Amino acid sequence: MSRVFRLIISCPDQVGIVAKVSAFIAERGGSIVEANHHTEVNERWFFMRHEILATSLGNDLPAFKEAFEPIAKQFNMEWQLNDSDKPKRIALFASKESHCLADLLYRWHEQDLPGEVACVIANHDDLRSMVEWYQVPFYHVPVSRDTKPEAFAKTEQIIEQHEVDVVVLARYMQIIPPNMCRDYAGRVINIHHSFLPSFVGAKPYHQAYERGVKLIGATCHYVTEELDAGPIIEQEVIRVNHAKNIDDLKRLGRDVEKITLARGLRNHLEDRVLIHGNKTIVFDL
Amino acid sequence: MSRVFRLIISCPDQVGIVAKVSAFIAERGGSIVEANHHTEVNERWFFMRHEILATSLGNDLPAFKEAFEPIAKQFNMEWQLNDSDKPKRIALFASKESHCLADLLYRWHEQDLPGEVACVIANHDDLRSMVEWYQVPFYHVPVSRDTKPEAFAKTEQIIEQHEVDVVVLARYMQIIPPNMCRDYAGRVINIHHSFLPSFVGAKPYHQAYERGVKLIGATCHYVTEELDAGPIIEQEVIRVNHAKNIDDLKRLGRDVEKITLARGLRNHLEDRVLIHGNKTIVFDL
Amino acid sequence: MSRVFRLIISCPDQVGIVAKVSAFIAERGGSIVEANHHTEVNERWFFMRHEILATSLGNDLPAFKEAFEPIAKQFNMEWQLNDSDKPKRIALFASKESHCLADLLYRWHEQDLPGEVACVIANHDDLRSMVEWYQVPFYHVPVSRDTKPEAFAKTEQIIEQHEVDVVVLARYMQIIPPNMCRDYAGRVINIHHSFLPSFVGAKPYHQAYERGVKLIGATCHYVTEELDAGPIIEQEVIRVNHAKNIDDLKRLGRDVEKITLARGLRNHLEDRVLIHGNKTIVFDL
Amino acid sequence: MSRVFRLIISCPDQVGIVAKVSAFIAERGGSIVEANHHTEVNERWFFMRHEILATSLGNDLPAFKEAFEPIAKQFNMEWQLNDSDKPKRIALFASKESHCLADLLYRWHEQDLPGEVACVIANHDDLRSMVEWYQVPFYHVPVSRDTKPEAFAKTEQIIEQHEVDVVVLARYMQIIPPNMCRDYAGRVINIHHSFLPSFVGAKPYHQAYERGVKLIGATCHYVTEELDAGPIIEQEVIRVNHAKNIDDLKRLGRDVEKITLARGLRNHLEDRVLIHGNKTIVFDL
Repeated sequence: MSRVFRLIISCPDQVGIVAKVSAFIAERGGSIVEANHHTEVNERWFFMRHEILATSLGNDLPAFKEAFEPIAKQFNMEWQLNDSDKPKRIALFASKESHCLADLLYRWHEQDLPGEVACVIANHDDLRSMVEWYQVPFYHVPVSRDTKPEAFAKTEQIIEQHEVDVVVLARYMQIIPPNMCRDYAGRVINIHHSFLPSFVGAKPYHQAYERGVKLIGATCHYVTEELDAGPIIEQEVIRVNHAKNIDDLKRLGRDVEKITLARGLRNHLEDRVLIHGNKTIVFDL
Repeated sequence: MSRVFRLIISCPDQVGIVAKVSAFIAERGGSIVEANHHTEVNERWFFMRHEILATSLGNDLPAFKEAFEPIAKQFNMEWQLNDSDKPKRIALFASKESHCLADLLYRWHEQDLPGEVACVIANHDDLRSMVEWYQVPFYHVPVSRDTKPEAFAKTEQIIEQHEVDVVVLARYMQIIPPNMCRDYAGRVINIHHSFLPSFVGAKPYHQAYERGVKLIGATCHYVTEELDAGPIIEQEVIRVNHAKNIDDLKRLGRDVEKITLARGLRNHLEDRVLIHGNKTIVFDL
Repeated sequence: MSRVFRLIISCPDQVGIVAKVSAFIAERGGSIVEANHHTEVNERWFFMRHEILATSLGNDLPAFKEAFEPIAKQFNMEWQLNDSDKPKRIALFASKESHCLADLLYRWHEQDLPGEVACVIANHDDLRSMVEWYQVPFYHVPVSRDTKPEAFAKTEQIIEQHEVDVVVLARYMQIIPPNMCRDYAGRVINIHHSFLPSFVGAKPYHQAYERGVKLIGATCHYVTEELDAGPIIEQEVIRVNHAKNIDDLKRLGRDVEKITLARGLRNHLEDRVLIHGNKTIVFDL
Repeated sequence: MSRVFRLIISCPDQVGIVAKVSAFIAERGGSIVEANHHTEVNERWFFMRHEILATSLGNDLPAFKEAFEPIAKQFNMEWQLNDSDKPKRIALFASKESHCLADLLYRWHEQDLPGEVACVIANHDDLRSMVEWYQVPFYHVPVSRDTKPEAFAKTEQIIEQHEVDVVVLARYMQIIPPNMCRDYAGRVINIHHSFLPSFVGAKPYHQAYERGVKLIGATCHYVTEELDAGPIIEQEVIRVNHAKNIDDLKRLGRDVEKITLARGLRNHLEDRVLIHGNKTIVFDL
């Protein structure tokens, strides 16, 4: 993979944004690897993502950033300019179930995840050996009703110490406290084991079994204060039938959860996910 | 397709049912084309479906039925014995949207639907010409808040006159009155344009758009008194993304609705769907 | 749907194309509804598609076209500028099987197909009544080994008379002669009833059954002189198993064929498909 | 999971087989957990699989087996009677690519694979550490053109020593010699990284890229002497488009390969796959 700079823009829509931005890139000799636009017509809002070959810009991100500043101001842009050579640092939160954690660690180990796993934090000690085989720091931070505030204070301290960019709840069975939801808005990703908005909350496979659905699913979404209601990044389903019991649903669902989380996280790590209200634009050509 | 007799059984589970039934069939020289069993382990309930070549039973359904009676009593069976040469008679209920209606009429016309379309009842007159091309009786029965009781009285009269076995709500936008839900329990099939239990009720594509889901779906289910809450027969989904507006969702959804309804109805017509509480067993090998 | 102009470009890749084109559009006040780019990195070839609101360009296509000419020359572009108010004219070719033909006619009738069905040409007379219900001219042009040259001469004459832009082989079971393949290169679309390149040629469902595949499929592709080997536009599959016989495969396959052809054709009609060698770029966000 | 005995039967079709077998089971008080039948109508061949609760048969497999012998003879059955408490022993063959190997080891470690991983044999030493973390014996048996006979002699010796029931080629890039194909017929499972019969042989993702297919797939099949032509157990696909390069296809394909192999192997381990000529019956309700 060649080094690229990723320019991510969201701003009020008007004629001339694309022209301005692409002229700016072209004048500097920037070679565009991938470009995506989207306009929310009703709300007249515009979204854009460019991948530009870093060598074509002299590998000089700060210069490019400084030069772009006036355009950003002119169009009232929210924007980011990220360097693929500075991959996002990930904290994986886990509990006892290992499938999502193991899947992400494996992908990272195989250089298949465009990010850096900085640490694992778990409220049980069960998965320590697996994590340590990958030579990733493992923190056991138990959480009980009484210790929750201290536990999360410690948790936040660990992720700050590791300069974490994104927290992934890899079947972490604790509810993130509201203040952490706010502090890390758009940076905490959860995998919920149902096709949301069906089966919010606890035991979704039991709920799915009781309702007799013919497909079960998983949802990768950003965490907000309202449980299982944040912006959806990715969803996937698998067919089931009357012959499947709850254990079968769990077993089949694990594969769906792993894939849904890995895809959603991958898109986040490559700056392909733009949040707009409670929805996402996902430029995942 | 060869003529078959379909023996459908549901009863409390115990050792020896399969042996008894298959011995009964074998003694009469019955040639089994397809056989399916299912046991609801928790509730100790047993379900079975056989297709038996009619010629191997001398094409004599009444004799077979009478002989089976004692076994059915012995095991407290709910059972049916149906003849593929007596296809179920279907009433299609429609409104203004034609896609599900047109799809089912076409399949029937091509001898692709194992049932007999007896009539179409619509609360608008728009689709008359299409229906009449297929030489199917078309009844325009308008429904308004004030006329609803009379309208449904008339509706029931029409379906009785046509000796209808199953009513299909092919995007019929009226709520079936409770008494009709009870009278035709297990014989009214609806297509709901969402992946239930998400987005019950009106305008599910709008709801899906607002929630920002990444897959939309359709659900074929039996109608019960509680809206969109009856036993699910079949579900299907299709991928969408941020670039799709509500009209796109509707357009993509139409294909999913058609296929989901056609599959569910086909299974019902072939006696492949057994209702158990609020769930279904679907023997659709 | 608002009227749009569609600017489709393919040319050697170089820095500055996007900037030049988007500046050109912006200077004229063009409001971009959708924009897509793709670069074939190995071959350094660039592809672009824009939808621009016609009103924002004063509804004046000829002026826009003339002004763009110099840019097109400068970058050695192959290009088109199409008007959504001039939908492509379609000739549907059919034989005896009706499912694809009926599906496309229905979609067109419901204004769900962004093109104009100009005529139907069939080598059997069976489907005349269905076509005439839609008030579409139906031509019965029988083809036999001996009459093939005359039959296709007549066929070409009909499609010229109807000013046809695209020919759709809706399960037309004749091989298009080489000269017509050349004359209509990139404008004849076929639906093949297998997941190509598996099961080229005759009786693909029989071939699939013999091989024991667990999924069957359909392929929508441009017709070239080599049988079933042209650029693929769209493919889809459906799960089957050992219990399905050849008639089941045909039945299940029909739904896949219909959807695959309708999707591929829709993309062609909206100028979303760019041919590059024996492959396609499909901008179908 | 309760202990079950699995009775697998394949024999010429005739009236009375099901009756005879189910009477036999019922007379001994056998409680049937799952039953599946299939008749190949054209070839008049019958297939049956029963899962019977072991406790209901006094946990006595030998007695049940002996008693069944005469029925098996009478109907010329090929049959097996297997005990879920004697899981099949698996040898995993690998090369350098780890994804399928890692996936199966993980599933086995989580008790999610109904078999016993006995050993790993690899022609490169790269994956030793991963395998040893799972405390599974790892054998490095290099294979070169000159040493192939000795290498496979050694390989067969290792799998005999470990009393292996099934060999899984988890992206093992060597061709199994004909004599081993014969000796282990129906007991060597391969994952091929294409949707067979498309793209047989080397570099299927390159072939898929060149052909411009819109879906890529994977095929789990039994190995026979003819390359990639054995009975197919399971297939799966994933959507791709023009924007995906060969590395993307490989990355997306890895997930499909893992799932396809895991599903196919699971069915084999539970005696759900019956081979019939070059096809399979898969009883995977």
